Amino acid sequence: MQAITIEDRQLVPREVADPVPGEGEVLVDVTAAGVNRADVSQRQGHYPPPPGASELPGLECAGVIGAVGPGVTEHHVGERVAALLSGGGYAERVAVPVGQLLPVPAGLSVQESAALPEVACTVWSNVVDRDRLRKGQTLLVHGGGSGIGTFAIQLGKALGATVVATARAGKHDRLRALGADLVIDYTETDFVTATKDFTGGAGANVVLDIVGAKYLARNIDVLAPNGRITVIGFQGGRTAELDLVALMAKRGSVSSTSLRARPPADKARIVSGVRRDVWPLVEAGAVKPVIHTTMPLAAAADAHRLMESSDHLGKILLLP
Amino acid sequence: MQAITIEDRQLVPREVADPVPGEGEVLVDVTAAGVNRADVSQRQGHYPPPPGASELPGLECAGVIGAVGPGVTEHHVGERVAALLSGGGYAERVAVPVGQLLPVPAGLSVQESAALPEVACTVWSNVVDRDRLRKGQTLLVHGGGSGIGTFAIQLGKALGATVVATARAGKHDRLRALGADLVIDYTETDFVTATKDFTGGAGANVVLDIVGAKYLARNIDVLAPNGRITVIGFQGGRTAELDLVALMAKRGSVSSTSLRARPPADKARIVSGVRRDVWPLVEAGAVKPVIHTTMPLAAAADAHRLMESSDHLGKILLLP
Repeated sequence: MQAITIEDRQLVPREVADPVPGEGEVLVDVTAAGVNRADVSQRQGHYPPPPGASELPGLECAGVIGAVGPGVTEHHVGERVAALLSGGGYAERVAVPVGQLLPVPAGLSVQESAALPEVACTVWSNVVDRDRLRKGQTLLVHGGGSGIGTFAIQLGKALGATVVATARAGKHDRLRALGADLVIDYTETDFVTATKDFTGGAGANVVLDIVGAKYLARNIDVLAPNGRITVIGFQGGRTAELDLVALMAKRGSVSSTSLRARPPADKARIVSGVRRDVWPLVEAGAVKPVIHTTMPLAAAADAHRLMESSDHLGKILLLP
Repeated sequence: MQAITIEDRQLVPREVADPVPGEGEVLVDVTAAGVNRADVSQRQGHYPPPPGASELPGLECAGVIGAVGPGVTEHHVGERVAALLSGGGYAERVAVPVGQLLPVPAGLSVQESAALPEVACTVWSNVVDRDRLRKGQTLLVHGGGSGIGTFAIQLGKALGATVVATARAGKHDRLRALGADLVIDYTETDFVTATKDFTGGAGANVVLDIVGAKYLARNIDVLAPNGRITVIGFQGGRTAELDLVALMAKRGSVSSTSLRARPPADKARIVSGVRRDVWPLVEAGAVKPVIHTTMPLAAAADAHRLMESSDHLGKILLLP
């Protein structure tokens, strides 16, 4: 099959052997694969695949089941699915544990549904499952224009939260259209002051952050009492001074997570939570995939350049 | 009444006016008041009382209700109670919101029960309510010989956890007798290596820490996947470098909390959780107050010197 390999930190189209679905896995013929910033890190050598995962990049896809492995009874050839992957999405075919499959939501094409698994599982596992964002609380989303950001804005809104997002000015109108109550141009305005002003001094109950070190102190500063910060990216560095007394003053917490390294049972639990809590919102139209562009699989290197430019808004999909 | 005031960072016995119980409060005639390290910080000027709290030190006591304020119907004069306080325990009488009262557990004297409110509420709110320590998981308690430590060891054990504690060598036998499965002399042995060795490489699911900055990196290192660190003291400093990538590798979280600044409704919820989850374990004898010594109220300054020496094991109580 055609796939994208990583060679000398470059994405290279190659003919490789088809994967073989193991016990409890299905083989998916990939209609579309989502591009994630973690793939860029992997290409750069900063985010190696966990043991047992495909060496090929690609953390999500959607397509049609082409074969089922031993012990699989609840899925069948021809079924349309979206999938959370540990790797291998940049390819014509990928083997997926059944616990990481989601149905294609009613009303969406297979291709559109490829934009959802990674962002839905990342945002749900942090903002809903662990940080327990509640109706009436405030969610601050850094990088509001990213795939994660555009999804988190919509999910936060659908859950009844006030949503504040940071993004470049050119993206503001579209983020407001997705439901953001306040969008802050972080190049011009301090997000701590703007968020506190907007919330009558209360601050943010949950912060979903892709910046990391550069924002840590200000993320604590913007926090409401009992607030939770989750760092899922390090575009602003990985090490920062943490003032524990400042954190105590908020009774706050700082977490950092990734999906990829989680064991299969943990992934399956998250996928199941997404199906229960998020898929109905997608099928009702309250949360939509936001797709910036699609590109042929062979143009994966261009897709990475676009992602690194941060000029996109929403997801970039590769089509084998 | 007789009370202890803070003057020029010294504890001074003084005659002061009796407190008057407000709406929803009772007046407690104090039998015994617990001494906490936070009281030492307050005396040193580092931990001022929150707005509305008594200026007198003392975060917990037990005694007998001597009067009830307006609107109090579910409590009566003569009732024996333990109480979580926002201040004012170092005195013959203290006014307490009814949401912060606990009954004296069956089998305990009023005096003994004064050793429990602050440690029970602190440990329950962090280790049970937020960090969700489960049977079969590992709890690492730093400062195992402290009031918090001796309580956390027993509660962790009663919940079915493996309990690892750090303490000076002279305290080890008694901490093992309280239920600690492993006690580490932190002056001789690296707690990360010792904890990982003892748990077959798994590490600690929950870390309850009173050291702060000095232990932050090693607390992340010792963490099991999805592990939670809660910092409730800063004996080793307040600011430390946080490596967010190291935290992500554990999908870990770092929290810092204190009880005192919580709003009354939050305190009442915690007290209610303690009564539901912890008091039955106390009444069954699975969790016991550990009292190092009792001293007359007028000797409060000596009690602080003892606490600062860290030579004690368990609680120090003041008797008005």
